Amino acid sequence: MKRRSILKIALTSALIAALSVPVIATAETAKPVIQGLPMAERTVPVPVGVSPELAELIGSRQVETLGEVPATTDEWLALQSAFDAASIEGVERLLEMTGATFTTEDIAGVTTYRVTPSEIAPRWADTVFVHVHGGAFVFNGGKAAMTEAIWLANGLGVEVISVDYRRPPLHAFPAATDDVIAVWNEVIEQYDPNQIAMFGTSAGGNLTLSTVLQLRDMGAPLPGAIMAGTPAVDLAHASDSWKTMEGLDPLGSRDGVIEGTFEVYSDGLDLEDPRLSPVYGDLDGFPATVLLTGTRDLLLSDTVRMHRALRTADVEADLHVYDGQSHGDYMSGLFVDAPETQDALRELNTFFDLHLE
Amino acid sequence: MKRRSILKIALTSALIAALSVPVIATAETAKPVIQGLPMAERTVPVPVGVSPELAELIGSRQVETLGEVPATTDEWLALQSAFDAASIEGVERLLEMTGATFTTEDIAGVTTYRVTPSEIAPRWADTVFVHVHGGAFVFNGGKAAMTEAIWLANGLGVEVISVDYRRPPLHAFPAATDDVIAVWNEVIEQYDPNQIAMFGTSAGGNLTLSTVLQLRDMGAPLPGAIMAGTPAVDLAHASDSWKTMEGLDPLGSRDGVIEGTFEVYSDGLDLEDPRLSPVYGDLDGFPATVLLTGTRDLLLSDTVRMHRALRTADVEADLHVYDGQSHGDYMSGLFVDAPETQDALRELNTFFDLHLE
Repeated sequence: MKRRSILKIALTSALIAALSVPVIATAETAKPVIQGLPMAERTVPVPVGVSPELAELIGSRQVETLGEVPATTDEWLALQSAFDAASIEGVERLLEMTGATFTTEDIAGVTTYRVTPSEIAPRWADTVFVHVHGGAFVFNGGKAAMTEAIWLANGLGVEVISVDYRRPPLHAFPAATDDVIAVWNEVIEQYDPNQIAMFGTSAGGNLTLSTVLQLRDMGAPLPGAIMAGTPAVDLAHASDSWKTMEGLDPLGSRDGVIEGTFEVYSDGLDLEDPRLSPVYGDLDGFPATVLLTGTRDLLLSDTVRMHRALRTADVEADLHVYDGQSHGDYMSGLFVDAPETQDALRELNTFFDLHLE
Repeated sequence: MKRRSILKIALTSALIAALSVPVIATAETAKPVIQGLPMAERTVPVPVGVSPELAELIGSRQVETLGEVPATTDEWLALQSAFDAASIEGVERLLEMTGATFTTEDIAGVTTYRVTPSEIAPRWADTVFVHVHGGAFVFNGGKAAMTEAIWLANGLGVEVISVDYRRPPLHAFPAATDDVIAVWNEVIEQYDPNQIAMFGTSAGGNLTLSTVLQLRDMGAPLPGAIMAGTPAVDLAHASDSWKTMEGLDPLGSRDGVIEGTFEVYSDGLDLEDPRLSPVYGDLDGFPATVLLTGTRDLLLSDTVRMHRALRTADVEADLHVYDGQSHGDYMSGLFVDAPETQDALRELNTFFDLHLE
């Protein structure tokens, strides 16, 4: 046995750092700050920690390069229309599958959809939840707003009011949250705010958090609990997982269309404004918040940063991270009947049951 | 504006999947299951979501290739000695920094270290916590066991008994958990088990979970709460983040020395045995569990899988994921006084305060 080669292994600073005395090894091996760490090219197999249903879904995925950023208002509108149309087909299929129904209601001058599940749970018979749809601030308007509302309404047995807020390119911030706030103020004239959950995914998570931030600043009644699913909480800076998970998440990349949506949404306002990037907000007094994400989510870092910010502000905040899941995958499992999707609904029901009056 | 190119963007299945109707798009674009997804080479900048102290630590990191797997018992012993010696230096420095002291105690024939912090918090004056050290099952024996015990003892103001359990290559499973169980059974003759937390990181998280699993099966009293920090819970299969985070985490890689430690520890036993891989266990009746990890942790997937398994078994289980942190980094910040390390201690104190009698 070569004593020297063993010592060479033994003193490998990385292994010592990780296994033995990270704090000491760090002090001893401190080097000048470098720009970043290299990640080598690799092929990542289907995760072992997911259900067979989700494994099939993930295994059949290809992550494509996205197209060009629209350069004009007309180009944005055309892209928006195409997306909305595709999403509305999905909504129609989802309504058929679940037996949920909806009515269109004007609330405070804003179009909303009231989604009624096939069966209402006794626990939620006297309330309604408020849904703020996702779609990078720009997409999923009109009836397309309802996808997540139908999922949660049917999964929990609760009526949901989904807000079809105004969107870029025609309406930049604060039109969207102004609309949600207007709807909220009218809804709480009929329902006890402490019994209402507000929820949304992706940009919808951002808008939910931003709405609550603004309501709190106004001294208005807040929802009893909120869900922020894989929320975009930092429009100013790309959180780590935007880089580390690129290639694994069908959302593709922050560069390009996504950055473009942040631009048309913020319309020149400072992107670190907490109403645009809630992770920079003073979160004092926030209601109990549940956050969902996955280990392959481009917004994993955004989500865990928001969780930490809430916990630092002493907010009751629960985090659920699904292995191998990309952006919004807790919903994607719906059509393949993935147990992870049922699990997410169970967690949400438990959380809202605990925190809503 | 070219209508066709816009439609091409609009119908990009990946973007639709992520932003609009993931469930529908999936059904429409289902392809035969493939082996995996390609991740392109990249340089990942220092995460924006970490404190300046941690940014400096991460920015100065280099992830090195580890050495060869020891081929003989003698080679393992030499590697073990070298590691232990390096870790003991760290322990001595840590004792000096914190003012914590320790006494060596034989409990049920097992060497243990009772760590006493410079100041005991009134809340924890009548109890003691039990620590199971990490180090890939093989490393950090002798006084090296104490690193995390000192960190937590001093951070919370609680006395900690750290178990210097028997290790491979001389002692394979179940020697380690036999030792922890023997110590536990004697400790609870003097202290109320409902007031005791058991905790460990990495292999120590695994051993904590495995010990509780075996205690539960024996019908023995369980700790009132446990912490499993970035635990290795699946020795049989490499969870997703072992692949996705390779290159960013100073732990290096599962291939090589780490896999080797699993082999000498399990010594031919089925690696899916829940006492080796607790994620496969029946977790019914587990005490409240808090789990810590980071988004750059090779064991991120192991940790979130364990969290889900516990939640599925209706166990009260809290998950905290630190952005940009690698394996065990919630402790690494100690010497650079990173606020994240204080935050982790605050969460642990809150959790144990809530769940211990």
